[in-house]
Amino acid sequence: MNRQDIYSKIDHTLLKQTASWEEIQKLCDEAIAYRTASVCIPPCYVKKAKGYTGNRMKICTVVGFPNGYSTTAVKAFETKDALDNGADEIDMVISIGDLKAGRTDRVREEICALKTVCGSRILKVIVETCLLTEKEKIAMCHVVSDAGADYIKTSTGFSFAGAAFDDVALFARHVGPNVRIKAAGGISSFDDAVRFIELGADRLGTSRIIRLAEDERLQR
Amino acid sequence: MNRQDIYSKIDHTLLKQTASWEEIQKLCDEAIAYRTASVCIPPCYVKKAKGYTGNRMKICTVVGFPNGYSTTAVKAFETKDALDNGADEIDMVISIGDLKAGRTDRVREEICALKTVCGSRILKVIVETCLLTEKEKIAMCHVVSDAGADYIKTSTGFSFAGAAFDDVALFARHVGPNVRIKAAGGISSFDDAVRFIELGADRLGTSRIIRLAEDERLQR
Repeated sequence: MNRQDIYSKIDHTLLKQTASWEEIQKLCDEAIAYRTASVCIPPCYVKKAKGYTGNRMKICTVVGFPNGYSTTAVKAFETKDALDNGADEIDMVISIGDLKAGRTDRVREEICALKTVCGSRILKVIVETCLLTEKEKIAMCHVVSDAGADYIKTSTGFSFAGAAFDDVALFARHVGPNVRIKAAGGISSFDDAVRFIELGADRLGTSRIIRLAEDERLQR
Repeated sequence: MNRQDIYSKIDHTLLKQTASWEEIQKLCDEAIAYRTASVCIPPCYVKKAKGYTGNRMKICTVVGFPNGYSTTAVKAFETKDALDNGADEIDMVISIGDLKAGRTDRVREEICALKTVCGSRILKVIVETCLLTEKEKIAMCHVVSDAGADYIKTSTGFSFAGAAFDDVALFARHVGPNVRIKAAGGISSFDDAVRFIELGADRLGTSRIIRLAEDERLQR
């Protein structure tokens, strides 16, 4: 696997509360230079980033993030607002309370509602693995596959743990052929990136890999 | 200050991602028994909690929470959705990126937009003090006062620190006479509660004080 193979799977991500437009601009510049899959940025910067990057970069943003307990009506409005502002991809957080209450029917309906809003645009479903049992993780593989979403994603990066190798391997065994896997949260080395990809991840949510590549470039 | 004086200033709060309906019900029961100011709960439970409590308890929920970087359109929709579902009070998070970029005009416009949606219902503005400089905290006292919101609130409880005594004292010196103060995040003893109130807080966002009171009751 060469470096570009890795870069092409990265959603180059900046989602901290204090993110400034200058930081988002730099993120976009790096994403274009390294030909990453997308930039993943806060909703309030989507419109400006679209104006800045034009069609040179896919823009991903987040919905119901990071706690997942907005109403479905709000998540659907948020999705439409983001797409109207120029987002190409949506990373939504499930209602973890519904999942834990055994209401996978409601979780599925919500994903379906958001996928309807997305149409052909990519919808990724964040399940926040660190808060789930193995049984719940497997249930979510089935729900995401049934609901017609495009990706299952491990983590928001805002709970107490991020992507784990075991979870990506578990997802790879249980998702349908229509669903790809995004690992996110705490991915901080090329070795980790390669291992996540080899285990079945098709996208990596991280800023650190491009940071490492930039550090190497500047030291040359 | 007697115990009931303290209870009457508490927004009895449960905002963790995994909160279940059973936990929200218990929270409502306790809030009614102790006559707290409100329950503060995730948006997805507002409608059900309203049905459960009727007019026996004020219901508070959160908007743009906890990162504050939703678009104004989304925060306004979220506010209307929450009020339609029965919320009496809205705790919104400001766009911290706008504040840090010196765009207090945009922060003020957003608060005004949400206060318009709220009408006579209470709007609290969370500024996330642990991420702000003293200058930014003072600026927010003026912005919140100008914008006609009802409260300035210290913290979401989801960043790296919660309410600080110094911040409540600072707010008390700088807010207009129309703005009250809510301290939230990490308030865990009766002594702390009293001190926050004495420094000028009119509301306390916490679940631990009622938990302490319940523990005492059960030991009697």
